[in-house]
Amino acid sequence: MPINLQIHLDNRPAGEAAASNFKLVSTETPALAPGQVLVRHHYLSLDPYMRGRMNDAKSYTAPQPLHEVMVGGTAGEVIESRNDKFAVGDKVVGTGGWQHYSVVDAAVPGALRKVDTSRIPLSAYLGAVGMPGVTAWYGLVKIIEPKAGETMVVSAATGAVGSAFAALSKARGCRTVGIAGGPDKCRYAVDELGFDACIDYKLHTDAASLSRALKLACPDGIDGYFENVGGMVLDAVLGRMNAFGRIAVCGMIARYDGAALPMSDPSLILLSRLKMQGFIVSEHMAVWPEALQELGTLVASGKLRARESIAQGLEAAPEAFLGLLKGRNFGKQLVKLYPQELAS
Amino acid sequence: MPINLQIHLDNRPAGEAAASNFKLVSTETPALAPGQVLVRHHYLSLDPYMRGRMNDAKSYTAPQPLHEVMVGGTAGEVIESRNDKFAVGDKVVGTGGWQHYSVVDAAVPGALRKVDTSRIPLSAYLGAVGMPGVTAWYGLVKIIEPKAGETMVVSAATGAVGSAFAALSKARGCRTVGIAGGPDKCRYAVDELGFDACIDYKLHTDAASLSRALKLACPDGIDGYFENVGGMVLDAVLGRMNAFGRIAVCGMIARYDGAALPMSDPSLILLSRLKMQGFIVSEHMAVWPEALQELGTLVASGKLRARESIAQGLEAAPEAFLGLLKGRNFGKQLVKLYPQELAS
Repeated sequence: MPINLQIHLDNRPAGEAAASNFKLVSTETPALAPGQVLVRHHYLSLDPYMRGRMNDAKSYTAPQPLHEVMVGGTAGEVIESRNDKFAVGDKVVGTGGWQHYSVVDAAVPGALRKVDTSRIPLSAYLGAVGMPGVTAWYGLVKIIEPKAGETMVVSAATGAVGSAFAALSKARGCRTVGIAGGPDKCRYAVDELGFDACIDYKLHTDAASLSRALKLACPDGIDGYFENVGGMVLDAVLGRMNAFGRIAVCGMIARYDGAALPMSDPSLILLSRLKMQGFIVSEHMAVWPEALQELGTLVASGKLRARESIAQGLEAAPEAFLGLLKGRNFGKQLVKLYPQELAS
Repeated sequence: MPINLQIHLDNRPAGEAAASNFKLVSTETPALAPGQVLVRHHYLSLDPYMRGRMNDAKSYTAPQPLHEVMVGGTAGEVIESRNDKFAVGDKVVGTGGWQHYSVVDAAVPGALRKVDTSRIPLSAYLGAVGMPGVTAWYGLVKIIEPKAGETMVVSAATGAVGSAFAALSKARGCRTVGIAGGPDKCRYAVDELGFDACIDYKLHTDAASLSRALKLACPDGIDGYFENVGGMVLDAVLGRMNAFGRIAVCGMIARYDGAALPMSDPSLILLSRLKMQGFIVSEHMAVWPEALQELGTLVASGKLRARESIAQGLEAAPEAFLGLLKGRNFGKQLVKLYPQELAS
């Protein structure tokens, strides 16, 4: 069996997450039981939600256990199978975590999904045609319910969710405005992702300033907002929401590391008769097939060309993850893994 | 024609509203044009939303104009009619404002509604069987969508909206918990209004303390919250909301007089996958008949016996209104008017 390198959560962050929270561990992969398959991971997905799970606090999922492999999405291929439905060489997507190999009980519904890489690259199944894409789809289609001609705004605009949001929103005839950090990301959002405008939040030191920029970019106000960050950005957007606006709350990345960031004026929810709704995409599995079909078509046709930030090798995962939390990634953050030597 | 006493908005509040913002004015009622009726008001309704309209600021309605009669709901009787649909003596509900008489273009849809006072007292049409009752109904039925066995919480529990909310929530088989100010109101909420429990927020100086009281009163958590106040109460309730909880935002009375009160931790909207929605009942006229029918039945059958605070005479309206903003009222705040002498 191959030697398997893993990254464990070694200890929980006190405040900001740090590389010292993680530990590289070497193990052997166990022999397969009937029904199981052995998957070699080509890509790990790094996602902001993982930061929340590193805390031992009330959240929507159980905390990441200490001294176990960091949980996360993976794309790879079957290299050994004791399951009739999976053959060696099949490309598969699952939640194998931060390690080179995983043994999967492939009969468990949702544990492993075969994917077609003839028109869509394998890595896209962790981004635009995977959890982040469906996240954008659910927030837009099921919570915001956009109408053609309305104005949609998304924060973390060049990330995996934001990229998919732009393509889905434009496909519905909406003016689509991004908020991102830095001129490169903003240029990319407009030039490559199809945003009508993108605001660099780093140019603004307070909500009032960002609000003025939003007014210029959204002359008819904001009807739908997809919230990934919280804090000052949320405050600024709230003041620009039109009556009966809808806010899908997907992330509060500004919150993960420390003290809560308040919403300065919740009375705007009443004044503008807003709907604000939090959601976790894994609780809405019924919509995934419909969402993945639209997202797959957008990717295969070139209408959604989401950028990827690819860190090289398992050992690079912690730093890449910490960079993601700081907004240093540019597009979907992945880790590419390379085959380990086989042993015994 | 009768001499008409009116209360005008004389100037706008700087910070807290004050009696000096209002001015008593004497005018003559004009002669009726065809289609008009003259209504003598028996009761004025005082409601928190009026405070928002006193500001010259962005809100969901136009500001109350200066040097004009304060806008507001009224219940009274027709004393002169040039409209075939209304006869002298008819009991009617409208929006006559803070004055003894109003001339109403009774042909305008919604301007004047005849009411049956054989089973329901006239004043109830300004409370339980009027705008406040429908407000409770809309928030509960259309936004919170309660299921039997769930736990519902309402702030300003003994007010006109809170009283109706309790009856409607209990009728749906929900554990119903109020938040009110002072032991008298809390006792009344449980003894007379049917609340299962009521928390005196004045016993708590911070959200953490109020949160502990909520935990005791809501051992299974909170599934629906009807928000009338904002501030510390909202913070405390947010931390006790169950997954997929719904919050109807009807008022932020704590906000009206001054600076915005922040929501301390909006990330709870995501963590608990909450829906939070603001609404204004006057924008949902289609539901009024259904809501009024249920509310009328609850009042006529004695299941909803909402308390009233009745100030005596038009001149008492400003102080009664300021008291309402401070929570000094106990139940629906009304002003009872007495006939003025007739003049030329």
